[in-house]
Amino acid sequence: MRIDLNADLGEGFGPWSMGDDNALLSIVTTANIACGFHAGDPAIMRSTVRAAKAQGVAVGAHPGYADLAGFGRRAMPGLTEAETETLVAYQTGAMAAICALEGHPMTHVKVHGALANACADDDGLALAVGRAIKAVDPLLGYMVMPGTATERAADRLGLRPIREIYADRTYADNFNLTPRRQPDAMVHDPAEALERVIAMVADRRIVSTSGKVLKADVDSVCVHGDNPQAVAMARHLRQGLVAAGIAVRAVLA
Amino acid sequence: MRIDLNADLGEGFGPWSMGDDNALLSIVTTANIACGFHAGDPAIMRSTVRAAKAQGVAVGAHPGYADLAGFGRRAMPGLTEAETETLVAYQTGAMAAICALEGHPMTHVKVHGALANACADDDGLALAVGRAIKAVDPLLGYMVMPGTATERAADRLGLRPIREIYADRTYADNFNLTPRRQPDAMVHDPAEALERVIAMVADRRIVSTSGKVLKADVDSVCVHGDNPQAVAMARHLRQGLVAAGIAVRAVLA
Amino acid sequence: MRIDLNADLGEGFGPWSMGDDNALLSIVTTANIACGFHAGDPAIMRSTVRAAKAQGVAVGAHPGYADLAGFGRRAMPGLTEAETETLVAYQTGAMAAICALEGHPMTHVKVHGALANACADDDGLALAVGRAIKAVDPLLGYMVMPGTATERAADRLGLRPIREIYADRTYADNFNLTPRRQPDAMVHDPAEALERVIAMVADRRIVSTSGKVLKADVDSVCVHGDNPQAVAMARHLRQGLVAAGIAVRAVLA
Amino acid sequence: MRIDLNADLGEGFGPWSMGDDNALLSIVTTANIACGFHAGDPAIMRSTVRAAKAQGVAVGAHPGYADLAGFGRRAMPGLTEAETETLVAYQTGAMAAICALEGHPMTHVKVHGALANACADDDGLALAVGRAIKAVDPLLGYMVMPGTATERAADRLGLRPIREIYADRTYADNFNLTPRRQPDAMVHDPAEALERVIAMVADRRIVSTSGKVLKADVDSVCVHGDNPQAVAMARHLRQGLVAAGIAVRAVLA
Repeated sequence: MRIDLNADLGEGFGPWSMGDDNALLSIVTTANIACGFHAGDPAIMRSTVRAAKAQGVAVGAHPGYADLAGFGRRAMPGLTEAETETLVAYQTGAMAAICALEGHPMTHVKVHGALANACADDDGLALAVGRAIKAVDPLLGYMVMPGTATERAADRLGLRPIREIYADRTYADNFNLTPRRQPDAMVHDPAEALERVIAMVADRRIVSTSGKVLKADVDSVCVHGDNPQAVAMARHLRQGLVAAGIAVRAVLA
Repeated sequence: MRIDLNADLGEGFGPWSMGDDNALLSIVTTANIACGFHAGDPAIMRSTVRAAKAQGVAVGAHPGYADLAGFGRRAMPGLTEAETETLVAYQTGAMAAICALEGHPMTHVKVHGALANACADDDGLALAVGRAIKAVDPLLGYMVMPGTATERAADRLGLRPIREIYADRTYADNFNLTPRRQPDAMVHDPAEALERVIAMVADRRIVSTSGKVLKADVDSVCVHGDNPQAVAMARHLRQGLVAAGIAVRAVLA
Repeated sequence: MRIDLNADLGEGFGPWSMGDDNALLSIVTTANIACGFHAGDPAIMRSTVRAAKAQGVAVGAHPGYADLAGFGRRAMPGLTEAETETLVAYQTGAMAAICALEGHPMTHVKVHGALANACADDDGLALAVGRAIKAVDPLLGYMVMPGTATERAADRLGLRPIREIYADRTYADNFNLTPRRQPDAMVHDPAEALERVIAMVADRRIVSTSGKVLKADVDSVCVHGDNPQAVAMARHLRQGLVAAGIAVRAVLA
Repeated sequence: MRIDLNADLGEGFGPWSMGDDNALLSIVTTANIACGFHAGDPAIMRSTVRAAKAQGVAVGAHPGYADLAGFGRRAMPGLTEAETETLVAYQTGAMAAICALEGHPMTHVKVHGALANACADDDGLALAVGRAIKAVDPLLGYMVMPGTATERAADRLGLRPIREIYADRTYADNFNLTPRRQPDAMVHDPAEALERVIAMVADRRIVSTSGKVLKADVDSVCVHGDNPQAVAMARHLRQGLVAAGIAVRAVLA
């Protein structure tokens, strides 16, 4: 058994930084790097790719809406499929170029925030993202949420899926993440998070908050680094997975 | 004898447009398309690439400084070579992805405005741009000004140079453009512009305002579309070149 | 009888311009000037205020969402009342300062685009805008649409309302503008537009497309300058109003 | 004897924050608040003004160049005096409006970063800033560096000067700050910083690194909060000033 650990990195902008990227790079095996629209800028992208390469961490593009002030977390309902396809291609191509400068080719794409939420629910948007990925490089992986439109889109386009679960989040019956405003949305206890993740990886199934079961091959677990607790949980998770005999390594590197 | 005619297109942003792109696409053989930093946005890039493809016009990236308000015309003296390399790679990679969506591969890169001015004078910056181009695709052409640092950089990096002259501008003794503030900087008369261009193309030499001569193979002539006079001059130039028996076509398409 | 003619001006950004501001300044009596969020920048604001002063045209702030790429026309449903209040105050205060530089005090505030649409429907947002105006200067007018939440907000806050109609648009039964996507949304014929405006001004009532009638004192008529037809309609309107014996002048200047 | 302690606050943007504003608000008596161009946004401005009011801390505008990515620290040599005047007025007016919303009127203006550097050396720019301040409100203080163009500008325009020194920086012979790249630019030891500040406040004179002496009434001392050491130094400074019998309070509140 094996699993990838991924985190979103390079989410600063100009003089600002966010989260403890250095700590996460010593824990995760895959980094999704912001591409300058919701966060990140060319210089931060490059230094993050370089740091990831130095630690042997695989990298992918993490495109989002063009909304620095809102960190890509605000819905943009008017955006068409073509516009979505275009902005994902733009950011993915930019990331590919930065990776080329550093000699550390990207392996995949994972969409961010409100764009990810929109894609989970909408086959047209999830396909638009997939077409953008494919245009840049048909061998790139498409990080998807099992049971949602993104997984269907990867399948339909023949893109390699990287099926991702969240260590610190619970699942609704449609296998989207339970909205953060609900009381049972988050898993705060590292031991509980580890137990849940091991169960999902080993049993190949995701269980919703109401008990609904989705059969799913899980490829990657997303962890966070926004605060010291999150970093501690990520570290605990990695150690626990290894202790449970599950190899921690990147999917496509 | 043959020559390429190029123009900078897609220099709108959001709701704003600039210049008569449609008119120019019926005149030029190569379009340099703004990449979202000094002008342009993903949607405009895509529609411009599509229109260029429909007209059989070759396309390239036209990266500039991250300065929408100043249209990339303000010097950014603090930018290092590494930062310059990074921002050119970012924009060129983004452009490559947009071109991939439209099935119209880009052929070259031409830097814009204050970035172009900085590169003409500075071998380090001109090489940084060249390395960025090469990282994205070593077969891309590097549009250069003969006799300047950009031409030397293309040569040193083994990039295919596209040696460009301006139809409506004169040259200083270092073969940079005469600064616009000088009275003899511009050529306003279409007949004079045509005569000058034919001489440069046929005689393979550029003559500065003081009479200094540079031997140069000229590959492309830059025209403008900011106002009806500029479009008329561009049209006159094309007709005059054809009438003079010089084939007008793209360099690398 | 008297009426004000208003138009939205200064809606360029950096190197870009929009509409024929010079033509409109010779027609209208009031200019609503973009404040740098959906369009405009400090330099454009200042030159527009100066030009308005030179023509004897009253000026007001025209704040919008922070969305240059979307020109403030995209809904931002997540924005709270407090956030709306804050962004309107920021832009109105900025405009007041620019007007102070030019010695041409602003008279009023008119919100733009998607923000205006949101306010027409939502008493909470319309009041938030009104509180922002009042905080900057309680003597500023609040340009409102009769029969909507903005008119109610001005009334409740004791702000001087400037009741505005559109020359080239029709009205739904809730006295919002008929959405542009509907076939009867626009009035294209200048003669028809003039007739409609004279009727609204003289009869003090607005008639919806279905025939519903709203009693309303009309203070100002909005005209546009995006294209030569719009400018011609504005000019025709002014001449027609004057010919009909209706004085054309600003409300609060 | 009395002295003001000031710090630059509200220098986050959107999701990002910078420095420990809460800690500083318990130490300083005056906060200079970023106005959205080099940092800050309307929501952050408002919450910072509110927090300052709650702590009894005076507030002022802290305008900078329109350069989020460079945090306003990059020179913009092309900016004219009129453009500088306009951008300072815009930001100061915006700040005045935010303060009005919170019922905590601003007391002064202090320019930021590269704009401050430009003004220290250039009487024309320093006057342009002063005119912008005066246009917004002639009773606002102009935070200046003794012996530089800003102090001369305040004097010439009849604006109330707030003469500021830096606790952790040394002075060149022209009484500008010693450039950070020089080895003796910074004072790292809190005890030494305190001793220097007490000497400047009590003796009314600033001594340059070469020993040159400037007679100066010192009104305010700038402290920083970028890192825990800076906050500790600021706290040490306040306690030391109070222990030395120097009252710590705002100049104009």
